Amino acid sequence: MVNIASKASGSVGLVTTQKLRLVLPPEGFLLERGGVLPELDVAYETYGRLDADRANAVLLCHALSGDAHAAGRHKPEDAKPGWWDEMIGPGKGLDTGRFFVICANILGGCRGTTGPSSIDPRTGRPYGSTFPAITIGDMVRVQQLLVRQLGLEKLYAVMGGSMGGMQVLEWAIRFPGLVERAICIASAASLSAQALAFDIVGRRSIMSDPKLAGGDYYGAEPGPDDGLATARMLGHITYLSPEIMDRKFGREKRPSTLPAERFTTSFQVESYLRHQGAAFVERFDANSYLHITEAMDTYDIEDAHGSLADAFRAMQARLLVVALSSDWLFPPEQSLELAAAALQAGRHVSYCLLRAPYGHDAFLVDIEHLAAVVGAFLAPPPAPAVAAEIGTSERREHALVRRLVPSGARVLDLGCGDGRLLAQLVGDSHLGLGVDISLDHVISVLARGLPVFQGDMDEGLAMIPDQSYDFAVLGETLQVVRRPLKVLHEMLRVAREGIVSFPNFANWNNRARIGLTGRMPKSAALPFDWHDTPNIHLTTLRDFTDLCRLEKIRITRVFPIAANSLGWALNRIGLANLGAERVLVKIARL
Amino acid sequence: MVNIASKASGSVGLVTTQKLRLVLPPEGFLLERGGVLPELDVAYETYGRLDADRANAVLLCHALSGDAHAAGRHKPEDAKPGWWDEMIGPGKGLDTGRFFVICANILGGCRGTTGPSSIDPRTGRPYGSTFPAITIGDMVRVQQLLVRQLGLEKLYAVMGGSMGGMQVLEWAIRFPGLVERAICIASAASLSAQALAFDIVGRRSIMSDPKLAGGDYYGAEPGPDDGLATARMLGHITYLSPEIMDRKFGREKRPSTLPAERFTTSFQVESYLRHQGAAFVERFDANSYLHITEAMDTYDIEDAHGSLADAFRAMQARLLVVALSSDWLFPPEQSLELAAAALQAGRHVSYCLLRAPYGHDAFLVDIEHLAAVVGAFLAPPPAPAVAAEIGTSERREHALVRRLVPSGARVLDLGCGDGRLLAQLVGDSHLGLGVDISLDHVISVLARGLPVFQGDMDEGLAMIPDQSYDFAVLGETLQVVRRPLKVLHEMLRVAREGIVSFPNFANWNNRARIGLTGRMPKSAALPFDWHDTPNIHLTTLRDFTDLCRLEKIRITRVFPIAANSLGWALNRIGLANLGAERVLVKIARL
Repeated sequence: MVNIASKASGSVGLVTTQKLRLVLPPEGFLLERGGVLPELDVAYETYGRLDADRANAVLLCHALSGDAHAAGRHKPEDAKPGWWDEMIGPGKGLDTGRFFVICANILGGCRGTTGPSSIDPRTGRPYGSTFPAITIGDMVRVQQLLVRQLGLEKLYAVMGGSMGGMQVLEWAIRFPGLVERAICIASAASLSAQALAFDIVGRRSIMSDPKLAGGDYYGAEPGPDDGLATARMLGHITYLSPEIMDRKFGREKRPSTLPAERFTTSFQVESYLRHQGAAFVERFDANSYLHITEAMDTYDIEDAHGSLADAFRAMQARLLVVALSSDWLFPPEQSLELAAAALQAGRHVSYCLLRAPYGHDAFLVDIEHLAAVVGAFLAPPPAPAVAAEIGTSERREHALVRRLVPSGARVLDLGCGDGRLLAQLVGDSHLGLGVDISLDHVISVLARGLPVFQGDMDEGLAMIPDQSYDFAVLGETLQVVRRPLKVLHEMLRVAREGIVSFPNFANWNNRARIGLTGRMPKSAALPFDWHDTPNIHLTTLRDFTDLCRLEKIRITRVFPIAANSLGWALNRIGLANLGAERVLVKIARL
Repeated sequence: MVNIASKASGSVGLVTTQKLRLVLPPEGFLLERGGVLPELDVAYETYGRLDADRANAVLLCHALSGDAHAAGRHKPEDAKPGWWDEMIGPGKGLDTGRFFVICANILGGCRGTTGPSSIDPRTGRPYGSTFPAITIGDMVRVQQLLVRQLGLEKLYAVMGGSMGGMQVLEWAIRFPGLVERAICIASAASLSAQALAFDIVGRRSIMSDPKLAGGDYYGAEPGPDDGLATARMLGHITYLSPEIMDRKFGREKRPSTLPAERFTTSFQVESYLRHQGAAFVERFDANSYLHITEAMDTYDIEDAHGSLADAFRAMQARLLVVALSSDWLFPPEQSLELAAAALQAGRHVSYCLLRAPYGHDAFLVDIEHLAAVVGAFLAPPPAPAVAAEIGTSERREHALVRRLVPSGARVLDLGCGDGRLLAQLVGDSHLGLGVDISLDHVISVLARGLPVFQGDMDEGLAMIPDQSYDFAVLGETLQVVRRPLKVLHEMLRVAREGIVSFPNFANWNNRARIGLTGRMPKSAALPFDWHDTPNIHLTTLRDFTDLCRLEKIRITRVFPIAANSLGWALNRIGLANLGAERVLVKIARL
């Protein structure tokens, strides 16, 4: 890439698409489904500078209709920058001040890389109907040849959304030594039945267009524009959430211009879809659409590797899986399934679920949170922790936990907050895993280089395999969950031992308050009013002990924590249920 | 209708489609969008017997692709019965032992009622491209002519799902005196932008088919089957929830039979969709599809009446709106919006949200709960209440509430249970409204002839207009909601006064238990263990009083309810916060 002009603030400035002919073996490029391409051109762009040690390259993988032009402008007067300009640039999520970014048009595309509309050197005419079937694996193998030919041994990261996320997964699985970090956004290990169904109908509308001429429509006549536009219109419905569609268009009508064609409505949404369809046929090729959607439809990691977890076993990259809350084409459950499989395979994997109202397209437009997550995940290993600004009581509890957890232990921190305790326990190794519901916390944990799953304890820990940790820590969280008993059992399913802390409602101060004043207790440990407290399942040390006995949970250590000298005195004489303001207990299966 | 053979158990048996030529004025049937039909035939079926007083007729309205054949079989060897056979029959949700059921093919259809494929008597040829644009209003006006011509003055009920629900709404709005009950299932006051978008793409695929020949394709050549099949395939995606699609088809492949057409996959879901498309073109007409979807798309009650609430102001029918949880084509929010508007207009309206995993099609296939709801809503007015089997303490509380609520008051019962108290307060008038989260409770309330909204107090009471009730009753529910304060304020937004009861945590027994035993209290009023109690926001009489003072809520009466003589004694000497096991208070805005 050449940055021709000086950069605008946050922009990579003017860029040019490069073209490279790959050096192929004499037999050509053999495709996974049996075809062969004698010649392979790749169109690509790069942004930022390659470091002297060639260790800062990030490969971007684009989605179905993207191309190599991800950021900046080709000419100053271009109305629009590249397709992910908001993500890429100096100081942005993918910081070109730090990284050397490469984005290449995919195999089978129609934007510079060899595809069905390219000339077959053997005939001198466009491939058309003779273009062979391709796979996501083929696309990734082409990218790998490109990267090698650019002189890179290793990629700092591979990153992409939607079908780009499938390429990211394939990179991480197929080339374990070549990728340090992988970011898979709004994607899946395979398409759902519903997503398949949309592609099936979209392809059918192209295949039904008589102008397709079996795929050999290149020439003077227009090709199957009608069918391609219909497919694109259908695609656009699936890229937006229904809420955004209602907000953007609702049932608004456009001012009538020309006498409308019969059965064409004046709804704004029809005009939007028709515009999208018409614009698409200007820049895209119907054969590419058929081939690329087919590659996406047949991609199936589970099918290829026996199980998702098996697919990830050899992966060395740190994987970040990002789901978008309102994405119904690649729904969050599919991302979580991916991340859970990598966790099951013992990999360094993080998962986060961004609140993004826009639908699947949110990875292109709802960029703010995504950029923060990406930035944190790509950040260099953090400096040693500075003296923590945390309360005495929390510091005391952290110190206790550190005493209980031997170095080298595998630790799960449930409700891990900003990951401070977890970092103290495991450094930045993947022996640790944090779980937290807050995105801010997840970003902090990612920035520490630690794996983290964004999630709600009440939704369960189903993604964590049995007995995969030595310790599960649940600090001051038991009383805020909806089903404390389920959480306790889940802790001891996934870890050998549990460390739980909670406020002790039977503390003398609480007893005195309710007993003498007739009001619900408030204290440092229970600071909230009754009507807006998150502490919805209060308990006492004694009740907790009883429950553990009933549930066959062994309490191996009890640390009553008092708030003042009276409390400590009561604890000392064995009246912990009276003295302790909070309790920390170590538990295990009987 | 003639029940030719004896009924199979629960079946209406053998049935015949009848045809009737409507008696029209000399100018013909004038359509709302300007066209005219000189002649109108209607195909219909009936099931059950008309009562001597002609008061038991129920009109069924079918959806886009339905027809008059809703139940039973035309011939004993028919593989499939009518489209809603599971709902209709002796002892079923729509009980033909009680009701005389009529179902007619809609105007514009192609199954016996006049539509684009019918012969235009003026030309002797099929209407084709000359068939005039139709509306949901036109369809309903045709049904009304049919009903009158069958000799009926009034309908006991009108009922339908999807586009049939739109017809139901139109009946209730347009003919207020003619309908006693209206059941609108999985429908909406207008299509969402997303649903419009799907219809737009579906119609486009028909319009793009060269065999459409502008609409005049009737004759020897096959019509636009390809386009129609594509539209139907797309429709079928929207009728199923993504979960059901994954469960039914997932990524299963069908055993390969013939050499597949290029870009046709072997996924089961493709084979299913193609089968649906091919079967549809056998029984449906492309012009009908275009006209009917256009009528559905342009239906917009709000647009026609200024506001949804205004549309319902003159409605006399009792309205039941049923939403299906996994329906994404007509999502539950649209049904709730409908029901809320009818409530705002002061109508007798109920709303329920059925857990139905199947998607939009659930109203045809997930029939069990729907049949129970329909059966309860259509039930005759209940016999006078028998002596209630309820606990002493609850009976005492009900008696208290009855003392506080004057006869004729408008009462909202939040967490109304089976509606017993509400029935005692308001009889079966629409001065009362129950709100409850449980479907069983909702069914009980419906069977009492009372209006009820199924819902979660924590989701808010947004559907209830300001100050629309005299009293809002919240019995033993304050402590189980997530945001008690919000619920209190909502109560006093929608009602002049509130009556709230809750367990008093400061009761002497609770104080003694926590004070002396160090365990979380359990009692008749607080019967649950700490870890699985629904009582997540416990309070005391004193805390509640403090909160009301802070929040400018006036407590106008306090009834401390004791569990035993010590409690009563304490209450008597003014120590209610010590004596009361539970408290009932009357509140109002300051």
